Parts: sequence; C-alpha cells; structure tokens
Amino acid sequence: MRAAIAASERVRGTTSPNPPVGAALLDAAGQLVGVGATRPPGGPHAEVVALAEAGERARGGTAVVTLEPCAHQGRTGPCALALIEAGVAEVVFATADPNPKAAGGAELLRAAGITVRQGLLAQDVERGPLRAWLHYARTGRPHVTWKYAASLDGRVAAADGTSRWISSADSRAQVHLLRRQVDAIVAGRGTVLADDPQLTARAEDGSPAERQPLRVVVGTGDLPPAARVLDDSAPTVHLRTNDPDEVLAELAARGVVDVLLEGGPRLAGGFLKSRRVDRALVYIAPKLLGAGPVALADAGVSTITQALHWSVEEVTMSGPDVRISAVPAEE
Amino acid sequence: MRAAIAASERVRGTTSPNPPVGAALLDAAGQLVGVGATRPPGGPHAEVVALAEAGERARGGTAVVTLEPCAHQGRTGPCALALIEAGVAEVVFATADPNPKAAGGAELLRAAGITVRQGLLAQDVERGPLRAWLHYARTGRPHVTWKYAASLDGRVAAADGTSRWISSADSRAQVHLLRRQVDAIVAGRGTVLADDPQLTARAEDGSPAERQPLRVVVGTGDLPPAARVLDDSAPTVHLRTNDPDEVLAELAARGVVDVLLEGGPRLAGGFLKSRRVDRALVYIAPKLLGAGPVALADAGVSTITQALHWSVEEVTMSGPDVRISAVPAEE
Repeated sequence: MRAAIAASERVRGTTSPNPPVGAALLDAAGQLVGVGATRPPGGPHAEVVALAEAGERARGGTAVVTLEPCAHQGRTGPCALALIEAGVAEVVFATADPNPKAAGGAELLRAAGITVRQGLLAQDVERGPLRAWLHYARTGRPHVTWKYAASLDGRVAAADGTSRWISSADSRAQVHLLRRQVDAIVAGRGTVLADDPQLTARAEDGSPAERQPLRVVVGTGDLPPAARVLDDSAPTVHLRTNDPDEVLAELAARGVVDVLLEGGPRLAGGFLKSRRVDRALVYIAPKLLGAGPVALADAGVSTITQALHWSVEEVTMSGPDVRISAVPAEE
Repeated sequence: MRAAIAASERVRGTTSPNPPVGAALLDAAGQLVGVGATRPPGGPHAEVVALAEAGERARGGTAVVTLEPCAHQGRTGPCALALIEAGVAEVVFATADPNPKAAGGAELLRAAGITVRQGLLAQDVERGPLRAWLHYARTGRPHVTWKYAASLDGRVAAADGTSRWISSADSRAQVHLLRRQVDAIVAGRGTVLADDPQLTARAEDGSPAERQPLRVVVGTGDLPPAARVLDDSAPTVHLRTNDPDEVLAELAARGVVDVLLEGGPRLAGGFLKSRRVDRALVYIAPKLLGAGPVALADAGVSTITQALHWSVEEVTMSGPDVRISAVPAEE
C-alpha cells in the first residue's frame, strides 16, 4: 500500500476530475511486479497501468489499490473487470468509492471468487492523496484548503505590509509542492492589487514547476493588465463574484477538484462564513511582529460563543515553523 | 532523578529567592531511602531534608540532586558538607550552580573522595523546575514567561471583547497550575480596567489554591478601588511605571524569581522591545474569530526584517489546543 500511495502522490494534480489512485501488484509469491497510478483524464486507471506492467505475473497474485476498483464503464473499462480477467487472487483497497456510479467494484470482485479486504492505511489515503477527490465525490464541490503563514502573534505581514519571508525555506518549499499538487490556486482581487503575487508553483531556485495549477482571482472590478497573475506562466481566470458557492460551482465545471485558498483575509472570511473551507493549513513561524495584518477578517463572528469550532488534525514541525492542519469540528 | 525532579516540582513557588531543588537518597544497595525538596527560605535545603529521612542508611549510598550541592554557608550550612558527613559514596546532580558564591560543591565533594557525576536529565531540570532560578542566578533578573491563549487566527478575544473561553478546560487548568508555581503574576493596568481579572490560582471548581502568587499591576494612573485584583484573596502591588527593568528590579527586591506575564498586548510589547521576555507559552485554540484584539502590540517592529526571532522549544497538545513553548533565538 505504501508503494501505491507513493505512486498516487506523484500524479496528484494531473488526474482531476478523476481521483489520483495508486495501485501495486504482487505476484503469487508476494513479489512486487507492477505499480501504476491514474493517468490524465481519458487515459487508463491505476489498476490497468499496474496490470500492464505485471503482465502474466499478476495471475494468482494480489492487487493493492488506494481506492475501491471501479465497476463502471466510463471513458475506460471497469477496473474490477480488468482485475478479474488478469486472474488476481486477492484485492486489498484502502477506501471505498463513495461515487454511486462507480461503486460496486468490491461486490463484483467477490462474486468472481476474489478475496477482498478493505481499510488498509485508510486514514493515510483519506487524509492524503484522495482527500480532495473523496470530498468532491461526496459533496459535488471542490475541496478547499485555506493556507497561510503567520508569526507567533498571528500577523501575516509586518506593519508596512512586508512579509518576505515570515515562514522558513522549508515551509515555502512545502507550499510550492502543495501548489503543484492542486488543481487551482484562489486569491482575492485585493491580494492581487496589494501584493501582486504570481501564484505559480516554483522550485527552490525560483524556476517554475513543469505543471502549474489554474490561477483564480476572485472579486468584482478589473485587474491591472500588468498584474503578474496575468502573465503567461500559467492559465488564469478572473471570477467576478464574491460568492464562494459561485466560485466553487464555476471551478467544478472546469474539472477542478482540489483548491488552495491563499488569501486575503476577507476572501477567507467569506469562504469560512459560508462553511466552504474544508481544511486549514497554518504555518506558524517563531517570529514576533506586534503590528500588521492578520490572516482572517469578517468571518461573521462578533462574540466568543459564535466562534467557529475547528479541530486539530495534525501538528508537525516544518523546519523551525509549527505546521497545524485543522478541519471543521463535526457539528 | 525522576523522584528528585518530582519533589522539586511540588515546592515550586515556595522557595524563592532560593531554588526549588529536589534530592533523592539511595542506600548502598540502591534502594530509595529519602526524598527531599527545598523548604521555604530559612528552612533546610533539599539534601538536608532527604538526609534526615534516610538517616544512617545514607552511608555508602548515592545522593541524586537536581542542582549541584551548595558549598557556602548561608542561613543554612553547606549541603556538600552535610553529604560528606553523612558518608555518601556518590553524588549525581543534573545541573551546575552558576552562583559563584554557592558553587564549588562538586569540588568539595570530590576532595572528600566522593564520586561526582553531572548532567543526568540536565535539560529536564534546566527547562523545568530550575529554569527561572538559573536565569535569575545568571542575570540577576526574574525570569519572565509571557503566556497567552489565542484562536487559530491569532485573536485573544472576539470583536466584542469576550474571551471566555477561547482555550480549553485542559489549558485553563494548566495555566492555574502555572500560576501556583510562579512567584508573581504581572498584568497591565489597561487589562485590569478592561477585563477586571482576579489573577489568582484556582482549582477547576473555582476555589482558590492554598498558595497564591503576588499580583502585580503595572502602569501609571490609579486603579479602581473595586478592582478584583485588589481583593483580599492574594497580596497585590501596583507599580507606577511602564519600564520593564524597573518592574523587574522592584520584583527582584521582593524576592521574586519567577514571573508570569499575562497581558495585555502593550505591556507584552514593552517587555519584548526591552528583550525582557524569556519564554512565550502560547495556547492556540482551534477556533476562528476573524475579528477582535491580538496578543501583542507595539513591539518595536515596523518591517519584516526587524521581526523578533524566536525558536520553538516544544509543541504539545493541551486537550484540543496546541501549546507552543518558545524562547528568544540566540543572537
């Protein structure tokens, strides 16, 4: 399953609206004989890629897949059928397919006499490579990760607006990796006017990544034609609305499943007020500023009893910074 | 050493200006035969308390102490001498005494033929029970811990000023334990006027702890006579200055070694600007507010390159909250 997860991580950002699935094939003796991950839309699914590599060695072996093999005929044939035809003896998957059209793969496999086990490393997959897609499959809306970096005292920039760099090189590298893995980066028009960010995924040396997410600027009113977000380093759309649901519907229509929300405070406030942030990824740098803007404004909270309740999912160090991943608390 | 540390933890807040030291005595067979901790000023030191419990069983045994046994004659005799007279064969201590008047205990012991080992669990002791006293012994200034609780987006209260409760019951219980362990709690006059806090150490049911730290209000201008901080639940002093060094000198003169700074933002800013905060203890609650005051103001930073650089010492969970302990970065 670790090999399958690793394979799926490598294709994150290239498969939407399909899930980035990983598959590994073991022969009857338990040797790894094939690894695959979802190809871009229209291409083969992970199981089929892994089966092609394994060939006849798959017979009597085990397929390990991050997602329940699909049972429906889309642009490609059902993966469950491909596994049956290849003669695998056992299928192990991490998480079930919530999509009613595609689900039923496990039943199909069992009916063919194949041993089916579910749940291996399910949490790793559900919080990791399949997180956004599972959310999308359940709700029809793209998954929104709100990311920001702040000082220990909660400032996202100093009094004069400077913020390069609040967070460490490690944290910035993580964010650029995250940008490569998402389908779209969303920022408010105010942030574009104030900071003129390029919103691209770059390597440590500043060179652009091979794959760039869609850049999305949200807000009524025009953008300056010279804004860096309008350069030709990546596609950009400007959505002239402040309604998070309109933004998400428009992005879903463009095949976007995984969204990174990168500011500013009022845009984040609008998304939070509408309960349209699914995860917060906060980098807290051990610096103190004592003045300057904070990450969030106008979230519809005026007294402490109205506070939005979240829950910490994971705390890790990112170089010298503390990285907190949080999700809305179940209500 | 664990027993010695635990004993010293129990007397924190009762020994200043002496260090809260813990000692454990093992007999020649390695059995625990005595445990002691520093008694209030004028009373016996930890080693003497432990020796009294052990009696003749200390002969040929081992003394385990959190601090190098003292070699000077103060209100009590030198502990090194007491250990020599008791006939212990070995002394193990965590951290050396930085006080030139008291140091030399290790030499004295070695000269008497006793095996001396240093450094066992030194970091636990230096960051734990002896942290404040070691700072005081080195600098002559009380140790200042700046503590605050904020939402994930950095607010210490909601837009209307309400803050009960941002942090969890676990975190609040930790803070009341901390208040019991320090010598003084310092708050600004502005906080007293705005929030009317009582600044006492209380149990979960609201009942006051047996021992209360000195309450210190900092700032020129009078206090309302009905302020809760002036009630008779604990002693209170009002220091009519905004200069952190004047505050700390006045507190040192009163035998205060360990200070908890509890707000507000401008007082914290003044202490930070003067480099008079030695540790920040931040409780980050997984709540979002989007409006309301933040923890720190006027720290003398106007652009990002002037940011105060700190370093994260420890991150732990406190119930649902993230607790970050940070210290100024070495310069």
